[in-house]
Amino acid sequence: MSLDWLHTPAQAVNDSARAAALTRQAWLTKPPGALGELETLAVTLAGLQGRECPAVDKINISIFAGDHGIADEKVSAFPQAVTGEMVRNFANGGAAISVLARELRAVLEVVHLGTVNDPGPLPGVRRAWIAPRTHNFLHAPAMEPAQLQQALHAGRDSIATASAAGSELFIGGEMGIANTTAASALACALIDVHPHDITGAGTGLDAAGMQHKSQVIAHAVAFHRAYALDPLESLRRLGGFEIAALSGAYIAAAQAGIPILVDGFISSVAALAAVRINPSCHEWLLFAHCSAERGHLRVLEALQAKPLLDLGMRLGEGSGAATAASIVRLACALHAGMATFEQAGVTNKEP
Amino acid sequence: MSLDWLHTPAQAVNDSARAAALTRQAWLTKPPGALGELETLAVTLAGLQGRECPAVDKINISIFAGDHGIADEKVSAFPQAVTGEMVRNFANGGAAISVLARELRAVLEVVHLGTVNDPGPLPGVRRAWIAPRTHNFLHAPAMEPAQLQQALHAGRDSIATASAAGSELFIGGEMGIANTTAASALACALIDVHPHDITGAGTGLDAAGMQHKSQVIAHAVAFHRAYALDPLESLRRLGGFEIAALSGAYIAAAQAGIPILVDGFISSVAALAAVRINPSCHEWLLFAHCSAERGHLRVLEALQAKPLLDLGMRLGEGSGAATAASIVRLACALHAGMATFEQAGVTNKEP
Repeated sequence: MSLDWLHTPAQAVNDSARAAALTRQAWLTKPPGALGELETLAVTLAGLQGRECPAVDKINISIFAGDHGIADEKVSAFPQAVTGEMVRNFANGGAAISVLARELRAVLEVVHLGTVNDPGPLPGVRRAWIAPRTHNFLHAPAMEPAQLQQALHAGRDSIATASAAGSELFIGGEMGIANTTAASALACALIDVHPHDITGAGTGLDAAGMQHKSQVIAHAVAFHRAYALDPLESLRRLGGFEIAALSGAYIAAAQAGIPILVDGFISSVAALAAVRINPSCHEWLLFAHCSAERGHLRVLEALQAKPLLDLGMRLGEGSGAATAASIVRLACALHAGMATFEQAGVTNKEP
Repeated sequence: MSLDWLHTPAQAVNDSARAAALTRQAWLTKPPGALGELETLAVTLAGLQGRECPAVDKINISIFAGDHGIADEKVSAFPQAVTGEMVRNFANGGAAISVLARELRAVLEVVHLGTVNDPGPLPGVRRAWIAPRTHNFLHAPAMEPAQLQQALHAGRDSIATASAAGSELFIGGEMGIANTTAASALACALIDVHPHDITGAGTGLDAAGMQHKSQVIAHAVAFHRAYALDPLESLRRLGGFEIAALSGAYIAAAQAGIPILVDGFISSVAALAAVRINPSCHEWLLFAHCSAERGHLRVLEALQAKPLLDLGMRLGEGSGAATAASIVRLACALHAGMATFEQAGVTNKEP
């Protein structure tokens, strides 16, 4: 199987565009630094997009959906049928991310990787079927090697489409009942954290449910421990179709020179796997929000990430990233649209 | 002078609309609570606007500008001429709030209350001239009684216009060199905090500048201490034209039934004065962001406020509130636009 592309370096950041943006910020009619993170965002995006005034008019959102064998262990508050049902809800425009994509005038692509409850072909849904679900990783690797490759390529394919359309920002999202369990297990393999310290409520487990989930994760992590140093192998053994697709998409986006706005817990674990597989993609990751899902903070720390928002969101689907995208747009508008001290005839700070 | 209107109660919150919105949230296709603060926002706005599905399509922003006598004490990193220069910049569309208002398609009104450097009448600027600046409150009350009334009425007038236009959200902003000094002194009178613990860098003071500013504030607070228990008198003695106008606007907005999105440090101090003058307006205040200005957290605590954003912004002009308004809009769109479990044919959480 050919996964050599995973190791191709990300595009280089354009240092001169970044420097020009930094200079521009100093001329705008405001005290230096007074727009806080909005300034940092504009300058970072300038470096990534290679222009003094970046823009995120064209946003591409891809939602990857897939089911998990580990759902057999009763680790979710919702039944497995919901994954397939939500694929239909995405297609019909009724999900949170559907609403947000409309508000942002973003291109929303739904990628169906495999669900136990199969809604069949749907308009607006790209069918990249791998299997009804992954294997139960309590007893076996979640994916066959060929399945991992299919999932990674599904993510790469989304980026090829986005890149051809001139995308200025990529948002990935996921749907998959039990996928906080997979993401938590994968995080344990990647950052050596104890399952108890990273296991959260997911879609809404109670304390007993979380304790059980934590034990399931601990057993799975122990079962696959020998491979923890290999991020790609850990992704295959503990991930899911949608998680691997996200990792593939993030790596491909960085290679294509498309800035990435990472969503919540599961997306961040996929991003961490991507960075461990190909460290050069780290510079292309912007972090949208801190999820209420318990383990997210720990994963963000491992990524040295400082997310934009902290709104107690924990839905996934790319919803936190889509929410934050409105802020990224405003940062670009301010950077490009504000007058300079000279243009406005405003006196600058006393020396 | 007739300021009796200040004590007229705010409109009552519509509890049945609030309850209907809460029920609606439980039916939307997501785990309960998964949209975090976005859910709370939608439900709160439903109660304020008296409809199950609130909207903030019509946003009114009023920026109040005025100069301060306390600027003589060299408490700002920028010269006093900047206030008048920025009024022209607002009018010409070059300021941060100008850009944000355009992006939000909000109505932006600039209210010129008096500046030492007078740009004269300008298109798009409402001239509500009081005086070139307040008195230096180190030695005298900042405002004459009639000036305080003019300032409060200027704020109320902005709300009358916004209300007539069917405004769904009000954002107030301010511009006035040295107004973090006035706001800090007023905060000390209202919440009994030591000047040292609330004095910040404003537009960019260094450590020595901040120490000097803190001493100026301490002297002023001591000079006016006898009146600290009277919020209206403290506002007159330690506030500024734009701060009093904001307080007046907040009270009038609550009375007119227009939800308010409070900006940063200075706006929050104006909101605190408003709440101390008329406690019933507290329910109408939503808080946009936590400013990087040092004293803001303390003022937010006094208001029991949990702001939406924390982006290290400290510009004023209503810029933090305008940035957060994009999030408020998304909250409303999600609340109104998502499918219910029944509509989407998605299985709800297992009992």
